[in-house]
Amino acid sequence: MSEETVLLAHGSGGQLSHELVERVFGRQFDNPILAALNDAALLDSLRSTDGARLAFTTDSYVISPLFFPGGDIGKLAVCGTVNDLAVMGAQPRYLSAAYILEEGLPMSTLERVVASMAETARTAGVQIVTGDTKVVGHGAADGLFINTAGVGIVPPGADYVPAHLQRGDRILVSGTMGDHGMAVMMEREGLQFSTDLQSDCAPLNGLIGSLLDAVPDAVRCMRDPTRGGLVATLNEWAGAAEVGIVVEENAIPLREQVRGACEILGLDPLYVANEGKVVVAVAPEQAEAALAALRAHPLGREAAIVGQVTSDHPRRVVARTPLGAHRILDMLVGEQLPRIC
Amino acid sequence: MSEETVLLAHGSGGQLSHELVERVFGRQFDNPILAALNDAALLDSLRSTDGARLAFTTDSYVISPLFFPGGDIGKLAVCGTVNDLAVMGAQPRYLSAAYILEEGLPMSTLERVVASMAETARTAGVQIVTGDTKVVGHGAADGLFINTAGVGIVPPGADYVPAHLQRGDRILVSGTMGDHGMAVMMEREGLQFSTDLQSDCAPLNGLIGSLLDAVPDAVRCMRDPTRGGLVATLNEWAGAAEVGIVVEENAIPLREQVRGACEILGLDPLYVANEGKVVVAVAPEQAEAALAALRAHPLGREAAIVGQVTSDHPRRVVARTPLGAHRILDMLVGEQLPRIC
Repeated sequence: MSEETVLLAHGSGGQLSHELVERVFGRQFDNPILAALNDAALLDSLRSTDGARLAFTTDSYVISPLFFPGGDIGKLAVCGTVNDLAVMGAQPRYLSAAYILEEGLPMSTLERVVASMAETARTAGVQIVTGDTKVVGHGAADGLFINTAGVGIVPPGADYVPAHLQRGDRILVSGTMGDHGMAVMMEREGLQFSTDLQSDCAPLNGLIGSLLDAVPDAVRCMRDPTRGGLVATLNEWAGAAEVGIVVEENAIPLREQVRGACEILGLDPLYVANEGKVVVAVAPEQAEAALAALRAHPLGREAAIVGQVTSDHPRRVVARTPLGAHRILDMLVGEQLPRIC
Repeated sequence: MSEETVLLAHGSGGQLSHELVERVFGRQFDNPILAALNDAALLDSLRSTDGARLAFTTDSYVISPLFFPGGDIGKLAVCGTVNDLAVMGAQPRYLSAAYILEEGLPMSTLERVVASMAETARTAGVQIVTGDTKVVGHGAADGLFINTAGVGIVPPGADYVPAHLQRGDRILVSGTMGDHGMAVMMEREGLQFSTDLQSDCAPLNGLIGSLLDAVPDAVRCMRDPTRGGLVATLNEWAGAAEVGIVVEENAIPLREQVRGACEILGLDPLYVANEGKVVVAVAPEQAEAALAALRAHPLGREAAIVGQVTSDHPRRVVARTPLGAHRILDMLVGEQLPRIC
């Protein structure tokens, strides 16, 4: 019997990632906070005077290439962690930044990345307050990896988890799907269509703050659909809440360039990573108000209502095609685009 | 002019590390919390009902080999972050764990490491509450890198920073110096002396808690002397407080095996990394009480008073040799032992 090894697909955000988390990490680090498997941990025992809780999250970034249209690994490392806090309803406040550098990395590359992190942190209104630097020999890492962890404040009453999903809830996306993954893919593969396709990489705390201000009681849960794209997020929700989700395929905003590039490469944009979009489930009677709030923000101009929660086909996500047919949007087992974040 | 690149020495904890932090990170991430350059950031704005503040820290671990006598990368990743919190006077509470895995890593290796993290977290009384996993292709990383970030609670009144150092303060170490670095070095190089040399890797929050309980007002500052060893810590203190520090070379506890191995390899044990030791500066009149408190704990049995703060030679650390001569213990510019943590 050959020995089981780590596969690229274990980092994909798809089925194998989930199995790894459950089997290895969940079993060993058994505690109810981790078991919730949210984008950020909610630390109930750490409360401030006004009853606010803390949220705490981490992500490592291994994206290749380091620079891509619309962003770079540093911008991504700040946005990703800010967004993981924001979708839990937290106000992101403090970030750490830890670097693993390969010997021989041009110092100017590091400086560009760090400057980009600083600029993105200012945009997001967070401070980078602690850090670490390790250097490994040539060949022991691929240029530059970054880890950011983040701490945010969850106001009293904020509670956005998939378990809150109810039949009839509307599913909204804040804009076009797949921009980040396809922009990185095109850059990596040196594909030059006549496009100006850019990553959507952006901090979402402002957009989410506007939404929550506008419809404070409507939001059931939120998620930034990164690895595995919209489909991974909706499958996680359907599984966690034991509901079905149906999306209208032609309601999902897609850039023409993303659609075209996906067709050429044989990819499905609904599985492609986003880094500046949020998926929101809201109570049906406030869906239009939520949509208006998203569209009023510069990062949400192309927001759309794309589907709803149903009691049919629990734990399954189904797309209704323009012709009225249905296709099941299963979680991918494997890896569509490695090192996309 | 050739382009400046990242060198192994930039990760050494020595002079080049400090220059990198100041020049690249300090300049871009300019804020007073980061500028304090403590082992953990103190988040003054996040206070609980009783006035406790939060501490927040991060470290990445790239040690080679992954397993070594006395520990492994997982145990190290928990201890290192627990200790960075504890030396700030914080009670470590929550950790994140983020993995960068190389495709092809045996799953059993990951499982051993994760089990070790879980066991160490239980020993230290902390919970691992959030995490992340990335996988990169074969050759793009060296097996397994781990980042941990940590959040702890700093009780009201706890305030341990080098600026508090005063002339006459005694310098204590909680035990023998250099065990971790030499144990890893021997393992890595396949050197087999007739030794049972082990890394000292251990969570120090219990030891430090005992010390602070015993002499609550005596402690000026604390640090775990990791990369760059005792000398790096004392140089940072001397620089930050603009004082001199003198150590009695023959008062510093050293294992015979470490002394011997260092002689053979041409290393100075005072520059070698520790992962389960704390250096403490205390008010002179309570130095003996502090020593007794350290020695009463299983991790501090070999504690010793090794030196004191002086107004002579500000910003310099000097060792008095057994023969009464003096030698200056400068921060190393370069890298003595790469990938030691």
